[in-house]
Amino acid sequence: MRGPLLALAGGVGGAKLALGLCHVLLPEELVMVVNTGDDEEFYGLHVSPDLDTVMYTLAGLANPETGWGVRDDTFNALEMMGHYEPSPWFKLGDRDMATHIRRTQLLGRGKTLSQVTHLLCSSLGIKHNVVPMSDHRVRTIVETDEGKLPFQEYFVRRRCEPRVVGLGFDGLDKARPSPEFDAALGQATAILFCPSNPFLSIAPILALPGVRERIAGFPGTRVAVSPIVGGQALRGPAAKILEELGYQVSALGAAGVYRGLCDIWVLDEADRSLAEGVSALGMRPAVTRTVMATDEDKVALARYLCDLVSL
Amino acid sequence: MRGPLLALAGGVGGAKLALGLCHVLLPEELVMVVNTGDDEEFYGLHVSPDLDTVMYTLAGLANPETGWGVRDDTFNALEMMGHYEPSPWFKLGDRDMATHIRRTQLLGRGKTLSQVTHLLCSSLGIKHNVVPMSDHRVRTIVETDEGKLPFQEYFVRRRCEPRVVGLGFDGLDKARPSPEFDAALGQATAILFCPSNPFLSIAPILALPGVRERIAGFPGTRVAVSPIVGGQALRGPAAKILEELGYQVSALGAAGVYRGLCDIWVLDEADRSLAEGVSALGMRPAVTRTVMATDEDKVALARYLCDLVSL
Repeated sequence: MRGPLLALAGGVGGAKLALGLCHVLLPEELVMVVNTGDDEEFYGLHVSPDLDTVMYTLAGLANPETGWGVRDDTFNALEMMGHYEPSPWFKLGDRDMATHIRRTQLLGRGKTLSQVTHLLCSSLGIKHNVVPMSDHRVRTIVETDEGKLPFQEYFVRRRCEPRVVGLGFDGLDKARPSPEFDAALGQATAILFCPSNPFLSIAPILALPGVRERIAGFPGTRVAVSPIVGGQALRGPAAKILEELGYQVSALGAAGVYRGLCDIWVLDEADRSLAEGVSALGMRPAVTRTVMATDEDKVALARYLCDLVSL
Repeated sequence: MRGPLLALAGGVGGAKLALGLCHVLLPEELVMVVNTGDDEEFYGLHVSPDLDTVMYTLAGLANPETGWGVRDDTFNALEMMGHYEPSPWFKLGDRDMATHIRRTQLLGRGKTLSQVTHLLCSSLGIKHNVVPMSDHRVRTIVETDEGKLPFQEYFVRRRCEPRVVGLGFDGLDKARPSPEFDAALGQATAILFCPSNPFLSIAPILALPGVRERIAGFPGTRVAVSPIVGGQALRGPAAKILEELGYQVSALGAAGVYRGLCDIWVLDEADRSLAEGVSALGMRPAVTRTVMATDEDKVALARYLCDLVSL
């Protein structure tokens, strides 16, 4: 029996591709590892924004306008919370809140984040494996020209405005990859980097002890979908951070971040001209439509990727 | 300086009178002690139904139709919770949920329930002292013909249908009255039993170590408003439980529950004919309109009671 596809993902871009992959692959053929570096406690509740985005997307509950949160949600708990805590700046919807409450309750009973995620996904009818990168607490710290900022402080409260000079991850000394992630690193047929932010979504996963080394030495095929198309990020600050960290703001610049970790770099058709540059970086270029506007786009891209790695 | 009025209350009836008392008395003239025997954990959140009812009522946020919860609330978190936990039977609104989340967060940081209640009340603009009966965990257990039931299981899930044969209170061995309750027992000018359920709302307060004895020996005036009017409870199962426990279902039967603890028993005008019976129980009868349909009723009853005890 061949091993599964190990997909590494962050938030919205990863969730879109995850939906496609779940249409193309059987549950046992996919391990979807999701960044938890942007997890945070709000009002004592454990919020896992990237896990939730993937989960809600797969469950058909995602808000199509924002990409995060639950569709048609209300914000009455948050409004009331405004009485108790000055100006809550992290938007949590009422339906969304139930997820954080339940997660916090189950963690409080001693379950791991992997176990909790499995339970939440099952409850929402998700059969594929959605796995946190780690069951330990890792927190992304964004080093900026205004000092170090906790991830959500940078991302939501400050809207990614401060200039990024580096990234740090709190808790790495005690963290290990989650059991399913660990197993998949050993058993997977292929590794897929979803078109998520290389710094904010993928770097925390790679920073876990041993992960970068194991992916560097991975015997199967490693494929990445460029998170930059036509010199721009489809959403989020990936382009801005590439520039701030001295990379070229292009699909080629993004490829440079994965040098030594990736065999096939998938460019959007708009970036066909960059194929030679990708080869020069030691990766095999592949070109397809990577922009996922519709569910059909997601499935088509997933199918293309599975063909690429012969899954 | 004279001491405050110490008012003992449960849910809706107590909350109505509390609103009147807050109109009549200055903050330093009132200590409102509220039953916490019906507190319960739902989804890991600490819910204090009686404290919330008093608090929402004083803050002008109460739902006038139900008596519990926040007005115009939505139930989207609860609906979502239905995915994670089979059939949630305890109704928690979204705005209401914020209170439970915040309370749980603050308790988790090591604050006492008294401190948390004070913070929540301040946040909602309440200047009067609303105090839990205890900072310790006491849980009312309803002993029924179907066995022992946790309070909310009896009250909400089973809608008070099982026949009550007795009451028990878990946690009394480690519980003490809250500091402000304890102080008020020593300093109060008068004690007021609000028209709350004698068994489900007031009995847990009296069951706390030393409380019954201290009220029995209290040197000031003790006054109670009958929770039964015209042979019926205005709401809730007080009449049903009186009958099940072998008391006469009347304002007189209810008075019997407080024998030795109360000096003045306030009857509604509808029960004027019971005044002699009250005297026979060793209490002084007083008659006024006790039904609180409007805010004016609440203030009028509060004023009447304060006059009775010369506050």
